[in-house]
Amino acid sequence: MESLLNKPRLVQMAKDKGVDAFIATSPENVTYSSGYWALSQWIRRGPQVFVVLPAKNLEASRVIAPTSLLDQLVDQEDVWIKNITRFGFFHVDKTEGPITDADSRLLDLFALPDEKDGLSALLKSLRNEGLDKATLAIDEMGLMPGQWERLQQELPQATIVPATKLFREIRAVKTPVEIDRLRMVATIAERSVDAALKVAREGITEVEMARTFHATTVQHDATPVLGCIGFGARSAMPNVHPSNTALRRGDVIRFDVGGRYRHYRADIARIAVFGEPDPKIVQYHKALHDGVMAAFDAIRPGVKASRVFEIAMEATRKAGIPHYSRSHVGHGIGLDGYDMPDLTPSNDQIIEEGMVMCVETPYYEFGWCGLQVENTVVVREHGVELLHDTDGGLRVLA
Amino acid sequence: MESLLNKPRLVQMAKDKGVDAFIATSPENVTYSSGYWALSQWIRRGPQVFVVLPAKNLEASRVIAPTSLLDQLVDQEDVWIKNITRFGFFHVDKTEGPITDADSRLLDLFALPDEKDGLSALLKSLRNEGLDKATLAIDEMGLMPGQWERLQQELPQATIVPATKLFREIRAVKTPVEIDRLRMVATIAERSVDAALKVAREGITEVEMARTFHATTVQHDATPVLGCIGFGARSAMPNVHPSNTALRRGDVIRFDVGGRYRHYRADIARIAVFGEPDPKIVQYHKALHDGVMAAFDAIRPGVKASRVFEIAMEATRKAGIPHYSRSHVGHGIGLDGYDMPDLTPSNDQIIEEGMVMCVETPYYEFGWCGLQVENTVVVREHGVELLHDTDGGLRVLA
Repeated sequence: MESLLNKPRLVQMAKDKGVDAFIATSPENVTYSSGYWALSQWIRRGPQVFVVLPAKNLEASRVIAPTSLLDQLVDQEDVWIKNITRFGFFHVDKTEGPITDADSRLLDLFALPDEKDGLSALLKSLRNEGLDKATLAIDEMGLMPGQWERLQQELPQATIVPATKLFREIRAVKTPVEIDRLRMVATIAERSVDAALKVAREGITEVEMARTFHATTVQHDATPVLGCIGFGARSAMPNVHPSNTALRRGDVIRFDVGGRYRHYRADIARIAVFGEPDPKIVQYHKALHDGVMAAFDAIRPGVKASRVFEIAMEATRKAGIPHYSRSHVGHGIGLDGYDMPDLTPSNDQIIEEGMVMCVETPYYEFGWCGLQVENTVVVREHGVELLHDTDGGLRVLA
Repeated sequence: MESLLNKPRLVQMAKDKGVDAFIATSPENVTYSSGYWALSQWIRRGPQVFVVLPAKNLEASRVIAPTSLLDQLVDQEDVWIKNITRFGFFHVDKTEGPITDADSRLLDLFALPDEKDGLSALLKSLRNEGLDKATLAIDEMGLMPGQWERLQQELPQATIVPATKLFREIRAVKTPVEIDRLRMVATIAERSVDAALKVAREGITEVEMARTFHATTVQHDATPVLGCIGFGARSAMPNVHPSNTALRRGDVIRFDVGGRYRHYRADIARIAVFGEPDPKIVQYHKALHDGVMAAFDAIRPGVKASRVFEIAMEATRKAGIPHYSRSHVGHGIGLDGYDMPDLTPSNDQIIEEGMVMCVETPYYEFGWCGLQVENTVVVREHGVELLHDTDGGLRVLA
């Protein structure tokens, strides 16, 4: 089975940085590196799961999970790691009759010794694997306060380096299964916008339109995450949250939206005008669109992220918004809504084949409206491939 | 306007613990203490917002927010704090014509000085308020690695104590506006179960039923969070994630579900049988239901959490599951799915009026099925008040 994890990239990173093992701790990196989506870790702050990935022997990788979440290890087909350590009390019963193979595998996990708490289990596992004197790259984002220090104290002979940024670098180049999911979720976002625009009528509120938007997302088995939908002057608020404001003739409708499908995020923007747009809307939107299209032409393996920024900004300014100002014109996307690379003026990261990016040129003019083009692309050998059907042109609703 | 924050309880906690100011850092505590729901902080790991709450002068409380999220401070009616510090670059434009009062307030925030980064802004604010020699209770959960140490270094004369647990204690007793939202979201969960059961038919899959469940949740303006829905033997998996398994006659359908409405969580469980239930299902479910009802009878202000655990366990065992084993029979609920108090055998926390709890007796028998009763109640002067319409009896679908 194909893994979410880009294994060759992790192995190469380990070589480049002299790392013996990576340890994932945050929900994004745990799911990414193991395929394991641990419910409580994703919907709350606090519950911990660890994944240990010895770079020279990935088959020896290990998931360290709370007993209460073991069922998901057996039931989720993305999980490729076979070595499991459990911790914490959680009681289940077993019927007297025959059980399925899956239930049998699960009961085997419940029968493993209880390692009491996650960090103790992690330490024991590292010692058992002979990694207590190794160079360990630990994703610091998912540690609780004091845990980093405890790891250093308990493993005095190990070299411990922070790995949140290294994991982001590994995640930046997507595997085929990741690209499939990113295409799916971007397409779901686009279809949800289409459905929402179909219910546009004078007097409908932002909240009512958002209901149709999210209902469409869940009908496609994705989970709502980002749902900025604003009418008229409210569309200028970058994070506009749907309100009871009613749609009026001439209003801009701005969507900056995207859910999560099989753990992967969407983030696209679409603009519609309810009725005939005023000429400034047409001119400005075209400029923003030109900016994104210029970025698309520029993106290919080997180009610097900062160069894409410059090209998009210049194109947008030339095409009709001379005062256009912006801190970035896009970002990677994956399990996290902001993966690498950031398309900023100072980022000299080199774009690689297989990166997936949201390229965007938002414009927020308070008192008037917000306009935005944001499209999702995967970087191929000779340029970009769009991951949804349309490229964010201005839509005029009759 | 009424605040989410239980101000008297925070002030009392400050007195009891000798704390001069509380500092919220995690999404739950930031939203709780200020009313401010900062989008990026909730949907990603990394973005930071801080709230400083001087216990002797709550009017001097301050929100420290990224510039990119300022719009939500003006647009969200829950926000009661007027003192704002911003950090980070984010560009917006202003139209030449007249603007609304809300836009004007927002542009005033954008015109504040840029404090570069969140932690520097927090330190400056603490010094400005004369809190650099004070006792500061800092919610450690939302800090990034190294920030706790930096605060200690930069504020050598301050006494810094961890506050994540203290915030949980403050949050344990809900304000009326919180109870209203918890009632609303629990009711939405119940209605979503009703809608999902209406589409039950032989051959429907868990995924298909989940679509109706979540679509109903979003139609009521809540966001899907927890959606464990399992048929037959799969219902025994505690965290069962909807699959393509089809419904068959005689199957148990287990729901352990709940979304988020205006930031507040639901978590209820419901059991239905598709067709005539076998007698063991009826007997076991009644025992679990009796356990929850016994807990309801026991819960009132002044009772220990551990006593409720004992009573529920005893009732369940007596009523038909003599081997019933469990680590807890419920937990608080609020902005977080697991608020205080936990109903565990070792928790001597005293139950107080205004606490909101999910009382539950789940039973997972691998190879057979999972059964569960979970209801949400608010503690009143003389006992519990149910926050939804039904109390989780077994439902038999013809």
